[in-house]
Amino acid sequence: MGHEEHKKHRYSLRIGVITVSSTRDEKKDVSGKILKEEIEKNGHKPCGYEVVKDDKIEILHALFSMLRVCDAVIVNGGTGISRKDVTYDSVVKNFDKELVGFGEIFRKISYDEIGTAAMMSRATAGIIEGRVVFLTPGSPNAVRTASSLIFSEIEHIWYEMHKEKI
Amino acid sequence: MGHEEHKKHRYSLRIGVITVSSTRDEKKDVSGKILKEEIEKNGHKPCGYEVVKDDKIEILHALFSMLRVCDAVIVNGGTGISRKDVTYDSVVKNFDKELVGFGEIFRKISYDEIGTAAMMSRATAGIIEGRVVFLTPGSPNAVRTASSLIFSEIEHIWYEMHKEKI
Amino acid sequence: MGHEEHKKHRYSLRIGVITVSSTRDEKKDVSGKILKEEIEKNGHKPCGYEVVKDDKIEILHALFSMLRVCDAVIVNGGTGISRKDVTYDSVVKNFDKELVGFGEIFRKISYDEIGTAAMMSRATAGIIEGRVVFLTPGSPNAVRTASSLIFSEIEHIWYEMHKEKI
Amino acid sequence: MGHEEHKKHRYSLRIGVITVSSTRDEKKDVSGKILKEEIEKNGHKPCGYEVVKDDKIEILHALFSMLRVCDAVIVNGGTGISRKDVTYDSVVKNFDKELVGFGEIFRKISYDEIGTAAMMSRATAGIIEGRVVFLTPGSPNAVRTASSLIFSEIEHIWYEMHKEKI
Amino acid sequence: MGHEEHKKHRYSLRIGVITVSSTRDEKKDVSGKILKEEIEKNGHKPCGYEVVKDDKIEILHALFSMLRVCDAVIVNGGTGISRKDVTYDSVVKNFDKELVGFGEIFRKISYDEIGTAAMMSRATAGIIEGRVVFLTPGSPNAVRTASSLIFSEIEHIWYEMHKEKI
Amino acid sequence: MGHEEHKKHRYSLRIGVITVSSTRDEKKDVSGKILKEEIEKNGHKPCGYEVVKDDKIEILHALFSMLRVCDAVIVNGGTGISRKDVTYDSVVKNFDKELVGFGEIFRKISYDEIGTAAMMSRATAGIIEGRVVFLTPGSPNAVRTASSLIFSEIEHIWYEMHKEKI
Repeated sequence: MGHEEHKKHRYSLRIGVITVSSTRDEKKDVSGKILKEEIEKNGHKPCGYEVVKDDKIEILHALFSMLRVCDAVIVNGGTGISRKDVTYDSVVKNFDKELVGFGEIFRKISYDEIGTAAMMSRATAGIIEGRVVFLTPGSPNAVRTASSLIFSEIEHIWYEMHKEKI
Repeated sequence: MGHEEHKKHRYSLRIGVITVSSTRDEKKDVSGKILKEEIEKNGHKPCGYEVVKDDKIEILHALFSMLRVCDAVIVNGGTGISRKDVTYDSVVKNFDKELVGFGEIFRKISYDEIGTAAMMSRATAGIIEGRVVFLTPGSPNAVRTASSLIFSEIEHIWYEMHKEKI
Repeated sequence: MGHEEHKKHRYSLRIGVITVSSTRDEKKDVSGKILKEEIEKNGHKPCGYEVVKDDKIEILHALFSMLRVCDAVIVNGGTGISRKDVTYDSVVKNFDKELVGFGEIFRKISYDEIGTAAMMSRATAGIIEGRVVFLTPGSPNAVRTASSLIFSEIEHIWYEMHKEKI
Repeated sequence: MGHEEHKKHRYSLRIGVITVSSTRDEKKDVSGKILKEEIEKNGHKPCGYEVVKDDKIEILHALFSMLRVCDAVIVNGGTGISRKDVTYDSVVKNFDKELVGFGEIFRKISYDEIGTAAMMSRATAGIIEGRVVFLTPGSPNAVRTASSLIFSEIEHIWYEMHKEKI
Repeated sequence: MGHEEHKKHRYSLRIGVITVSSTRDEKKDVSGKILKEEIEKNGHKPCGYEVVKDDKIEILHALFSMLRVCDAVIVNGGTGISRKDVTYDSVVKNFDKELVGFGEIFRKISYDEIGTAAMMSRATAGIIEGRVVFLTPGSPNAVRTASSLIFSEIEHIWYEMHKEKI
Repeated sequence: MGHEEHKKHRYSLRIGVITVSSTRDEKKDVSGKILKEEIEKNGHKPCGYEVVKDDKIEILHALFSMLRVCDAVIVNGGTGISRKDVTYDSVVKNFDKELVGFGEIFRKISYDEIGTAAMMSRATAGIIEGRVVFLTPGSPNAVRTASSLIFSEIEHIWYEMHKEKI
């Protein structure tokens, strides 16, 4: 049953972090800091870090810059429902395949932690040209929850995406 | 972490109710009645009530009429999978942002209540020009479940949508 | 509350099976075998069985061939995220209505069984011209989980889709 | 060949007019006036007239109100490319079938009249539940061009849409 | 400038014909006959011929059957705007790439021949897995116009689609 | 009638050029050279130039880099129908508004120049966050045709997009 077998395969991936926020800068970016630490703790290699405003062009520029050199990118912030939140709407249409299960399971775990407020996030993940992109809310708590989910599966995702080539 | 803080903010919203049904009229509309009572019980203001047939033009006419004057609209009925069910298909494409988490969590709670039949509903929610629209099944039980979910989060949703202006 | 009432209605449906795999043939197709057995065990009638490669034209040819004569079709395999997985992308856009709740509940049960790896599958279901189509992963375990979910609800789905005609 | 034969069929249709403009009111609305006159000159019946702001909710409210009682609706204004132009984006996604040929031929005739500036308009037409909707630019000249095109074909369109019932 | 050079390349392609009509049968199918004759006159090989009803499943079954063995398929009928016309809506969403220019130029030529009625057709073309599919109206005149356009470019299209492999 | 009036307004815009080609480099890029010359001849300011491979990530990286600093970007190459042509498919979904009239009129002029081969190109234009993006074929002849169309209207487009702010 694949999902156990793959555990034998370990990959050290190059993972970038983008923080989308109109108020945080690099110093105040607690969520970005958590993600960068988790990348290293889990045996992966940091591959770029940027804080950008809630602006479609800035977000997509940062994303496609990182996708040129990284295996995965974690984007935090801008997945909510206010008028300024454009991360989800800008990024999702560029996915070759959307991994709706990531958002579902993120919200399921969130629901157990914070109750019905979990419905508010539009967290999701998807594949662009063989790289994987995760979109998570921007709060430190949400990023911790997402991070634990991402790092428990990212090597499995990598294996599944690339197994026919390996 | 936002989701607790916002509890301090209380909003009394104008909320409309649309019942989509080819068999119910205003007298037989138990689900509509439940929703109108819940709106008041939860400290909000009723803002229109209409029963319409399973017809795209009737549904969208009722919806856009209410969106002119309401902060939120709850549409019940027509989210199923029979040929006559057109509520979901008519409304969803008009969302500026879809809040897929509402449907997911509604079905999760449904699943705990009624088991696998929960998969049958296409309940969802979304934002249109700063107003929020909920689509729920038409049965009284489904409406009670949805109602409890809606009223536990609608003020939080309102705060999140409008916080940058406040 | 409809979902209990319908239990009285029993339908014996004609159900086809398509296995999408670039490595399995009919002899090695354990998952196809499980599905065919479950169809009969649950009182339904087999209605075609085919193993096809991960190829859009082959998959859609098999699907539309079966939809001409079957009430439902279960497609297993090709719902993952590797470049060769095209089942989801080929089939979903042909749905008249998508039943996103099937995929959600499948992944919820999966999550309880195998943990976060559940997020990897793009299982879903939908309606095409009054027939129902299920897309499941191709592994025997996933097919067993999906099968239990499908057969607990397929008659209910049938009833809901066709009740206004009955 | 159909397109000549149908000329024998004459229909007197109920046609509504919506002007989308943030600057015109009913008095200054030359384009609306032209359209209302053309409706009568061509033997059809006026069926509502409204001037609304460049606002998704106002536009769709006016449109679905008229679609309840009219056979066709001509919407002028808001088909351009400035940030305030939302007519095209709000309406098109509600079409059951888009008649892309209307926009193409409108721009072809425009091109002969005004040259390359013709490319600027997002004029189009479509069907919603057996009614026909035309979107045209808001300038009097554009409305005259569109009007001539609409009235040379609207009875043919009506015949084609409804011939199987007639 | 490619478009002249390619004239040197000649390909004899396998081309199928599907007639979508709820009234024609093989005997009355003048348009189908024209297309089959043109295929041979232009040095190509007939590759299947079928008359199907205006039914999504029948159309897509016929299309994907032919795409398994043909290089191109010409589908005539069902591109209009009546409720029964489902060819365009069923087929277009399966295109990997749509060739909108085919429909545009077809309507441009049509316009010169029959005037504004040209706007009525939703003729188009597209690519599915390296094969090309044309959708044309079902009348003999329309099919003659489309046919002349198709056969003047089909070898060029083939060359362009496959040149990197050749 | 706006389209004449605007001629009075002259804007000197910052315009970038992206050449998408898997065979051309900067030295062999005749089409890129033509575009850069036309930008200056027409009184605009060059704003970046890049040659990228037929690769979604490379194309979108170059595009969003330029959109950060340019008023308009002209992308040439990759609008055809071969498997390697991904420019259209990668870029179009990022448009806030598509200007389908640009492609139509480009193909109309092309048709007068080269006949039915004009149908082969998927040239189009669109708006992203108040900037305008043109997609043209990569051959020098096509680029000359597109260029003449672009520079006859780009200031008008700019005026139309921004008039409410001016």
